[in-house]
Amino acid sequence: MAETSDRSNRFLRALRREPVDATPVWIMRQAGRYLPEYRATRERAGSFLALAQTPELACEVTLQPVERFELDAAILFSDILTVPDAMGLGLHFVEGEGPKFHRPLRNPTDIAKLGVPDPEQSLRYVTDALRLVRRELRGRVPLIGFAGSPWTLACYMIEGEGSRDFARVKAFALNEPAAMHALLDVNARAVAAYLAAQAAAGAQALMVFDSWGGMLAPAMFEEFSARYLAQIAALLHDDPHARDVPLILFSKGANASLEVLADTGCMALGIDWTITLDEARCRVGDRVALQGNLDPATLLASPEVIRREVRRVLDDFGPHPGHVFNLGHGITPNVDPDHVAVLVGAVHSTGANKNS
Amino acid sequence: MAETSDRSNRFLRALRREPVDATPVWIMRQAGRYLPEYRATRERAGSFLALAQTPELACEVTLQPVERFELDAAILFSDILTVPDAMGLGLHFVEGEGPKFHRPLRNPTDIAKLGVPDPEQSLRYVTDALRLVRRELRGRVPLIGFAGSPWTLACYMIEGEGSRDFARVKAFALNEPAAMHALLDVNARAVAAYLAAQAAAGAQALMVFDSWGGMLAPAMFEEFSARYLAQIAALLHDDPHARDVPLILFSKGANASLEVLADTGCMALGIDWTITLDEARCRVGDRVALQGNLDPATLLASPEVIRREVRRVLDDFGPHPGHVFNLGHGITPNVDPDHVAVLVGAVHSTGANKNS
Repeated sequence: MAETSDRSNRFLRALRREPVDATPVWIMRQAGRYLPEYRATRERAGSFLALAQTPELACEVTLQPVERFELDAAILFSDILTVPDAMGLGLHFVEGEGPKFHRPLRNPTDIAKLGVPDPEQSLRYVTDALRLVRRELRGRVPLIGFAGSPWTLACYMIEGEGSRDFARVKAFALNEPAAMHALLDVNARAVAAYLAAQAAAGAQALMVFDSWGGMLAPAMFEEFSARYLAQIAALLHDDPHARDVPLILFSKGANASLEVLADTGCMALGIDWTITLDEARCRVGDRVALQGNLDPATLLASPEVIRREVRRVLDDFGPHPGHVFNLGHGITPNVDPDHVAVLVGAVHSTGANKNS
Repeated sequence: MAETSDRSNRFLRALRREPVDATPVWIMRQAGRYLPEYRATRERAGSFLALAQTPELACEVTLQPVERFELDAAILFSDILTVPDAMGLGLHFVEGEGPKFHRPLRNPTDIAKLGVPDPEQSLRYVTDALRLVRRELRGRVPLIGFAGSPWTLACYMIEGEGSRDFARVKAFALNEPAAMHALLDVNARAVAAYLAAQAAAGAQALMVFDSWGGMLAPAMFEEFSARYLAQIAALLHDDPHARDVPLILFSKGANASLEVLADTGCMALGIDWTITLDEARCRVGDRVALQGNLDPATLLASPEVIRREVRRVLDDFGPHPGHVFNLGHGITPNVDPDHVAVLVGAVHSTGANKNS
């Protein structure tokens, strides 16, 4: 099959399910603590939020993994909770405890007060960072922008912080469905406006992280998460800047609902490692590309094991177009960067003959 | 359809996929902190381990939920980590942090030293408690005994405690497969001997909790978890006391591998709430009964919502034999006991006409 692709367009071609010269690969949380150069910049910034909210520093750490490894995409260094922060909830991080909000939502009245923030006002630090990264990348690899999903944002907005079981937000959804739908609707409109602004600022692909969608039973997942992912897809489809920008949805753990997700109007689905890509592909057919799905713990094993497991994931997907290699969840801080180089090399060399 | 069943045999009939007068229901962790009478006994005991290791007290809390609610089974109050404790690893609990081992396994040499404990010696407190509970139950409802799965025990034995991602044990499995298989084999033999002793002491059903099987990719799940669940089933099948005692397996989150689990030789599968019972039943067919699968967070909602969601789970399963109602995971400490009564009543009244 005749084709042309290289590091500058493999990722976007694979998302469109076009032939590629090698399977593209990027890594969730690739700009992160496992990299010594990231830790140095993070220390200079003083805090995680200062790093995320200073465009020059966010740009610097975004580029680090792309400079070090032959990755096929950059993803802006940012946080999934920027939107509720812009809505006034007061995002902050407690060392070792993850994100928290100063003013979580406690009742329907709190929700009724929420509005859609203007991204070029209150989230300007994100669009500025995207413009800067695009310039610095000089077309080497495409740039991904992202946001949290309406449901995942609602989890943190109502719980006020992370949770083992998100029981409070689930009980709220069950007991106050009208208020919950109002919250999810404003979240969906805010996320769509935010992603559209990211596209206008130069993001070449957009990803929505539905980190906690998989905590829901399938019927609740459809009602409270997937429906609002579809709303975002529809809003982006009507936006002049975002219309042609590929949208990737990742509802971690929601493997019972892959068919539903494939029908939301997105271009690709992120897949975690608890299902084979073969099964996922059989279920969603040709509707979407797939992104994933090596268990992040594999990177703690030996180079030999990493190569074998990379091949297993590539074999699971099989000789079809439409695969973006990734982990099934974010890379962990205790990974040796040399193991990431092994992974990237294994993906490219194994995939090289796949579609030729 | 003519039938006879009541609280004393509904549960065992449903496990055998025989008709019942109402769907039986019990609740994982039903003897637990949400009950004030449990908290009182726990305080008297002084510690969680003292409670679990004193047969009279373990018996007392085992009976509490059966006295208060119309539950169709009792499950011995105990812990999934009793077997590695009997192997000498030194189980202890740190308040608010969960179980830990004083002497976790660090290398293949540690594993080579492990042996199968004699349950009537080092786990006598469990079999004594079972004998006591059987006597006190006077045939009102059947009694369930249980153990942790070989993989789940290995997770704690190697990590030394709980973990968010169990990366250390996964890396060990990938890098040292021979040592890991040796560990899983001794665990499987120890668990089978333990469950057989529980059957001899009066347990009328046996359940294996594979709490962390769902953290594994499907190929690793088959190799490191399901294979040893099948080994336990085979060993129990050859045991004169356990041969006719129904075996229930619950690999939380391993929904990609239900077909594999159904082929292990067990009688029933526990199902978490992230898959519908309809889908689970379609995939395992008539090979096994199913136990589950209401989201535990539902018990924090209003009685009206609880009744509706109970009906949804019963409708998902449909008008077939072979359903034991349960939550999809353990009940949480913040649940109002009155809500449990609502759940039990809803299961029995909805299910009453189902198979008649």
